Amino acid sequence: MNKKVSLKDIAQKVGVSTALVSYVLNDKRQNRVGKDLAKKIKKTATTLNYRPNQIAKSLKTNKTNTIGLIVADISNPFSSQIARAIEDEAEKNDYTVILGSSGENAEKSAKLINIFLERQVDGIIICPVENTQAQVRYLHKINIPFVLLDRYFPEVKANHVSVNNFGAAYMAVDHLIKQGYRNIGMIAYKTSLVHLQERTRGYIEALRNNKQSFKKSRLKELKMGCTQQEVEKAIDQLLKQPVDALFFTSNTLASCGIKYINKLHIQVPNDLGIVSFDETEAADLFYAPLTYIKQPIDEMGKQSLHILLDKISGKKKMITSNIDGELIVQRSSVLE
Amino acid sequence: MNKKVSLKDIAQKVGVSTALVSYVLNDKRQNRVGKDLAKKIKKTATTLNYRPNQIAKSLKTNKTNTIGLIVADISNPFSSQIARAIEDEAEKNDYTVILGSSGENAEKSAKLINIFLERQVDGIIICPVENTQAQVRYLHKINIPFVLLDRYFPEVKANHVSVNNFGAAYMAVDHLIKQGYRNIGMIAYKTSLVHLQERTRGYIEALRNNKQSFKKSRLKELKMGCTQQEVEKAIDQLLKQPVDALFFTSNTLASCGIKYINKLHIQVPNDLGIVSFDETEAADLFYAPLTYIKQPIDEMGKQSLHILLDKISGKKKMITSNIDGELIVQRSSVLE
Repeated sequence: MNKKVSLKDIAQKVGVSTALVSYVLNDKRQNRVGKDLAKKIKKTATTLNYRPNQIAKSLKTNKTNTIGLIVADISNPFSSQIARAIEDEAEKNDYTVILGSSGENAEKSAKLINIFLERQVDGIIICPVENTQAQVRYLHKINIPFVLLDRYFPEVKANHVSVNNFGAAYMAVDHLIKQGYRNIGMIAYKTSLVHLQERTRGYIEALRNNKQSFKKSRLKELKMGCTQQEVEKAIDQLLKQPVDALFFTSNTLASCGIKYINKLHIQVPNDLGIVSFDETEAADLFYAPLTYIKQPIDEMGKQSLHILLDKISGKKKMITSNIDGELIVQRSSVLE
Repeated sequence: MNKKVSLKDIAQKVGVSTALVSYVLNDKRQNRVGKDLAKKIKKTATTLNYRPNQIAKSLKTNKTNTIGLIVADISNPFSSQIARAIEDEAEKNDYTVILGSSGENAEKSAKLINIFLERQVDGIIICPVENTQAQVRYLHKINIPFVLLDRYFPEVKANHVSVNNFGAAYMAVDHLIKQGYRNIGMIAYKTSLVHLQERTRGYIEALRNNKQSFKKSRLKELKMGCTQQEVEKAIDQLLKQPVDALFFTSNTLASCGIKYINKLHIQVPNDLGIVSFDETEAADLFYAPLTYIKQPIDEMGKQSLHILLDKISGKKKMITSNIDGELIVQRSSVLE
């Protein structure tokens, strides 16, 4: 390996003292240094490819200022947006995020947890997938700071940040009923994940409280990762009953769904009302812009990071946070 | 820390020999073990939270079977889809990907490279951002296997995988001209990144070869990360000239653009033709489905991974790969 760039090299290039370079690069006493000079020092460090001796730094502080994040599927916009929100907040707090995607697979999740632990992250934020209760218990046992995000297991004690899924789903279906829709179908997932079951429970409760009977045939439960064809088949079966409104439990299902409904030339909202849980890029561009539950992604990202930082700094208290979603009403669910 | 789960613990739980568990978990001699039994052993290992002694394993093989991936902005669908493609291919090759997002920021890119190097990844795939030539030269100097993806620096020798950006942009603009559009504007980025400059060059060349003059006023160059308002202003200025077609250099710009055009009630494709470089979820749902350049994301992911694995296994030869994009013609660019 080549000789590493030292603080001295940077100091010489900029023409200042080594101590001053150290102050600036360690973000200390910045008020003593002019903004432009600090900028110049940082830029020179980048240009010369200065690498602080992280291992030595870690030994001193016993921290790596790195956190691990495990999302459920990086190709889902929800995952990539929440990753971005956590990244941005981590940056402000001088932490760097390294990220892994479990692809909704418990074995891969275990692998990623091991990789992060062996690479000495200070803590982990996890969107846990099905059948990973043992992994969460293990993290608890070895006393590593961690926070569950979006999903959690009611039977396993853990800090977590989630959306009020029941409340948001209830609000969506209640809105459809208040608009005059009478035969509301739901396309959901068959899953042991509680946050998704809560959405289905919200649908059923909203029907009951509005004195509409819940019919099992109107609830289609597809497997996670199902194909466009499977969504189309479910929609065909619902339309035949017939239903006059559809509630999709996820952005992926809604996105498949409106592509198909677009092809079928069904008149939304008059022949069919639609509400989706979570956004899709497409929501605003569908000819009848979609009503959807906006998940508080930025807030979820921020809160999970700050709970994790609290844990890293030694706070013991369990924290769980349940944030309300927001119903964004657009044309797809408002009878004309 | 608690006692770690050992191979023996798993063997006792399943009721087989420790050697057999070791065979299965190290993916050796699997043909000697029945599929169901192998599955049971793996599942038990997951349930018990078995963590192989990775450090010991690394010392033996000198490999960690982990690679680092640095994308430019995880919240962009291009980044998240390419991450997924690399993940899937890595999984097939028994590698795990850890991921960082530089957010188009050179300092953050340097930080992530350091984190990955200190955490002993076997190699790195990078979508490099502006002003990171020194970082690439440094990776070359310290002889760590790496591949640049999507973007590259012509002046810096490095293995890279990219799209034929010039050819794809040329094809898009040539298509608009063949359709009869005569005043074609382009919304591009003001950037030093060559892959984006190549798209602009493709636009200009296609105009010239079709004997249409290139007018500077029809090329709007916005800064990367520009706002919806800035895109709207650029579109206003172009429509006034007037132009009868628009070529967007990225999915983000196209997505902002069609949201605005939708609001303006402009008739696409008859009053305005549109082609976008790269896809957006929204492409198919805009009332005139968008013509776009499909980037070969899966192939780019696969190739970059395999070039990296070749480097890791010691191959010295420089490899660069330039893959053609595909023009997907839909209604937004076909005069009726």
